[in-house]
Amino acid sequence: RFKETGRIDAFRMKWRKGEENQPHFYWDSDVAKWIEGVAYMQREAPDAELEALCEDIISEVIKNQGEDGYFNIYFTVVEPEKRFTDRNLHELYCAGHLIEAAVAWYETTGRRAFLDAMCRYVDYIDLRFRQRRDTAFRTSGHEEIELALIRLYRLTGEKKHFELAEFFLNERGPNEKGIADAPLSNIQAHLPLREQRTAEGHAVRAGYIYSAMADYVLETGDEKMREACEAIFDNILRRRMYITGGVGSSPFGEAFTVDYDLPNIHAYSESCAAIALAFFANRMLSVSPDSKYSDTVERILYNGFLSSVSLSGDRFFYENPLEIIPRLIDKDVSSNQRLRMPRIERQKVFRTSCCPPNIVRFTPSIGNLIYGDDGETLFVHQFISSETEVERDGRRVTLRQTTDFPRDGRVTLSATEDLKLALRIPYWHKGFEGETHLGYTYFTLKAGEEYTVNFDLTPRLVSTRPESFYNAARAAVMRGPAVYCTEAVDNGENLRDLRIDPTKTIEVTSDLTFGIPTLKAVGYRQAVRDDELLYFDGLPTLEEKTVTLIPYYAFANRGISEMQVWHNLK
Amino acid sequence: RFKETGRIDAFRMKWRKGEENQPHFYWDSDVAKWIEGVAYMQREAPDAELEALCEDIISEVIKNQGEDGYFNIYFTVVEPEKRFTDRNLHELYCAGHLIEAAVAWYETTGRRAFLDAMCRYVDYIDLRFRQRRDTAFRTSGHEEIELALIRLYRLTGEKKHFELAEFFLNERGPNEKGIADAPLSNIQAHLPLREQRTAEGHAVRAGYIYSAMADYVLETGDEKMREACEAIFDNILRRRMYITGGVGSSPFGEAFTVDYDLPNIHAYSESCAAIALAFFANRMLSVSPDSKYSDTVERILYNGFLSSVSLSGDRFFYENPLEIIPRLIDKDVSSNQRLRMPRIERQKVFRTSCCPPNIVRFTPSIGNLIYGDDGETLFVHQFISSETEVERDGRRVTLRQTTDFPRDGRVTLSATEDLKLALRIPYWHKGFEGETHLGYTYFTLKAGEEYTVNFDLTPRLVSTRPESFYNAARAAVMRGPAVYCTEAVDNGENLRDLRIDPTKTIEVTSDLTFGIPTLKAVGYRQAVRDDELLYFDGLPTLEEKTVTLIPYYAFANRGISEMQVWHNLK
Repeated sequence: RFKETGRIDAFRMKWRKGEENQPHFYWDSDVAKWIEGVAYMQREAPDAELEALCEDIISEVIKNQGEDGYFNIYFTVVEPEKRFTDRNLHELYCAGHLIEAAVAWYETTGRRAFLDAMCRYVDYIDLRFRQRRDTAFRTSGHEEIELALIRLYRLTGEKKHFELAEFFLNERGPNEKGIADAPLSNIQAHLPLREQRTAEGHAVRAGYIYSAMADYVLETGDEKMREACEAIFDNILRRRMYITGGVGSSPFGEAFTVDYDLPNIHAYSESCAAIALAFFANRMLSVSPDSKYSDTVERILYNGFLSSVSLSGDRFFYENPLEIIPRLIDKDVSSNQRLRMPRIERQKVFRTSCCPPNIVRFTPSIGNLIYGDDGETLFVHQFISSETEVERDGRRVTLRQTTDFPRDGRVTLSATEDLKLALRIPYWHKGFEGETHLGYTYFTLKAGEEYTVNFDLTPRLVSTRPESFYNAARAAVMRGPAVYCTEAVDNGENLRDLRIDPTKTIEVTSDLTFGIPTLKAVGYRQAVRDDELLYFDGLPTLEEKTVTLIPYYAFANRGISEMQVWHNLK
Repeated sequence: RFKETGRIDAFRMKWRKGEENQPHFYWDSDVAKWIEGVAYMQREAPDAELEALCEDIISEVIKNQGEDGYFNIYFTVVEPEKRFTDRNLHELYCAGHLIEAAVAWYETTGRRAFLDAMCRYVDYIDLRFRQRRDTAFRTSGHEEIELALIRLYRLTGEKKHFELAEFFLNERGPNEKGIADAPLSNIQAHLPLREQRTAEGHAVRAGYIYSAMADYVLETGDEKMREACEAIFDNILRRRMYITGGVGSSPFGEAFTVDYDLPNIHAYSESCAAIALAFFANRMLSVSPDSKYSDTVERILYNGFLSSVSLSGDRFFYENPLEIIPRLIDKDVSSNQRLRMPRIERQKVFRTSCCPPNIVRFTPSIGNLIYGDDGETLFVHQFISSETEVERDGRRVTLRQTTDFPRDGRVTLSATEDLKLALRIPYWHKGFEGETHLGYTYFTLKAGEEYTVNFDLTPRLVSTRPESFYNAARAAVMRGPAVYCTEAVDNGENLRDLRIDPTKTIEVTSDLTFGIPTLKAVGYRQAVRDDELLYFDGLPTLEEKTVTLIPYYAFANRGISEMQVWHNLK
């Protein structure tokens, strides 16, 4: 798709005014994320064709990089005179993604050319932004470079790379100029970062800068930055996150709004924002090994992230709504203006195509989310069949995890040497009998022995706080980490009329069409008389109906259909 | 308020470019509606000062009318070169309101000057639009003149007045140019009027043209137009009307949308649209005496219309939402764009101030809605203390209605001569023992005898069809024609968490603060633990709470407060 739209050719810097496929100011980042994704995939399943394509693009980057180290397609072939003048146009964001791609490419291939080129670019950015301060804006309009620089520093060990990240983090705030058409809070610049306590603004930008803040805390132990990170995370967890782990509920500014404003139909809940929150939560785990962070990563993985890609793997959601009523899509039929509604079918490509390559790079990097290591204790954050190696007293110790989770709740661990483990006991597992500390059980796994835990995947109803008005007095159905939904294709139209009977057991069926079991609940619907008016006195007669629930991540894979996560109750 | 904003002075036509208070293209209509309202009020409670002010404005109209008969402030002092060129700018709409004002002023005062001036203006419009056809558009962009012309015809008896209305009705359709920035359906021009079957577009324009269509059916018996009127009315009644009688659910285009799209928080439900629907429904009563029309007039009167004015009488709503959650007003805090939300407190004046003068003219004309007469049977449509006179066999017969409705359900009728009556038995009254035909009971009231009926005002829960997804599985509370609501000021925040117990009786209290009794229901709320997360497993523990319900029309009279019409049930 990127070839078709000119995004790959753009790297040849041959575009001239008047030609089609004018490079967009964020195209560098689209392709950079894709290269980063390929780098991860090459580690497990090398593909010569993909590798050659990446090397070709990388050679164009090197060939077309300025003598001063600068590299940006848009500001070279479209508006070269505007270099570092417009905070709105994602210039440092593109640089950040190129840096991440270069790091990943080096880590996979051992080839330094791309990395060296990006180090030269970083030196140039440092010269202009930090040393000379002669740019028209001081810090990124769309954050990303901050976390990329810390990542680069961790690879290169070069202090200047960290200092530039620190510079951007410290400079960010209300004394700077903003971006066009949005308050400073949209770019998390309404307050100095250390003073922020709530999640504000564009949810992807937010997730990226919060991730950089967490990285900074890890590197420095800065207490004020840590307080900001913890307060912001708690604000998200307690007031601003969908049950799916999606965040950023408004299409206006693609942003966080106010506490408990989590509309289902109009959810923005961008795929990239789910990924960005997973980045932030996973980094916070290293700051403080509290299962609220790994529970959140899990919530995102199996719901708000996984929903973004079709079961066929080649279609994507930008927005991930929690309810779909297809006939509302054209509701403003008599107006040329309308409220942006989430698309109700996944797309092969978008004009603003940040999400698909983000999914491409995030999916093969999920291995990074499974374990944590503080040098003494190995943390098992996620339940995914895998092996990992840690060093203990100069010896390599391998931990093997075997599981069919979340299809099944059994997780088995074994190690080649005695190993101190901390295993997450997920919030949804009832009746764990051992001791836990911040949601983890700590124990030593003896070499060669198997430790097995069987997590309880009994389906359950989930409620929300009364302030969360969209879903107050309603319930969602979950099984382990997976949120379930109903679709009209199984249950008929008018899902809000469906009332689940909370006194009846939810049945786990043997239907594994969607990877994990389809569920059946007992519900009720109005007995409808066709001549009934819109409003009628009294309560309707109810008829019992079996309710079929499928995993939320699998919605919209069988054509356009009504869909609902939060259900009325009988 | 109109004086302060320059609307009155504008009639002196002295405004010059660069001065403040530039006349707006709809100011003529604002003041015309106000004059029409004064005309009605003068009949019951003459006020010399108001009369003098009206006569002053009228003298300016006459003085400043063109020699050709044209009168429009905006197209005289602001853009005189654009006369009859821009279908968007309400030129014929203003003419329509001036005609209605002139008719009302003549009917009240017997003075012809204003009426004659407007007849000259109508002649000029006829010349340009119908005879010469040399205008840049063929029919109104914002309808109103069509019903005004039929009203004028009924007073003058001049066929040309009717023929111009008929011309506008027949010409309207998709072969014409539209208005800027909106599909033809926004101005009900997507199909010839006789072919329309659903309520589309701007809800005030719609109500006005449907009213003219009903008037046309009354005058001509045109079967195709009648079919259109009936289908459109049924579409509104069965699929596109709030329980309050409000219509036009979207701020985009101020318009009808799709079936059952009746959001509570984002309701547009403009005050003018409620009035326009009352006009249409009341006219349909003359076409066919079916209580579905008078029930709808009643629904509007006591709910979606009455809510538009404060209990103090001097503050107004433009939009009439069915739910208010005050903290959502600033939800798009990190964006400069936002979805238009209804205001949550009534205002003294608006920049687009169509609603207040519409309320001013509609309120004192409510007498027109109470009775209908086909020359043989006198119809009692509404229950309001009043007297009316009809002629039977050359004799004047007076009917007196005495009632304290809707505070009390007793209605007493008496007449000076034997009189055939048709009394509406409202849809909400249970167990009427006589015979009814289309919702009316027909009988002869003997001279000097009293007929008393005691309508059942027991509070009741009201449900909605399953397709009406915003409120499926919820219930509203009504008592007689009045919809009730809860406010946080009585019931605490988080009204969606409130679950009314439908098995318990709703108590009618003796509290008449809001004119009709405040109600008490039994409800339940979550027992909240402050440390509870946003989502929690299982169902919440519920605590019993008394629910206080006040009439919907009285909401937002005690400061900013959460408000809700549709309630969750236990």
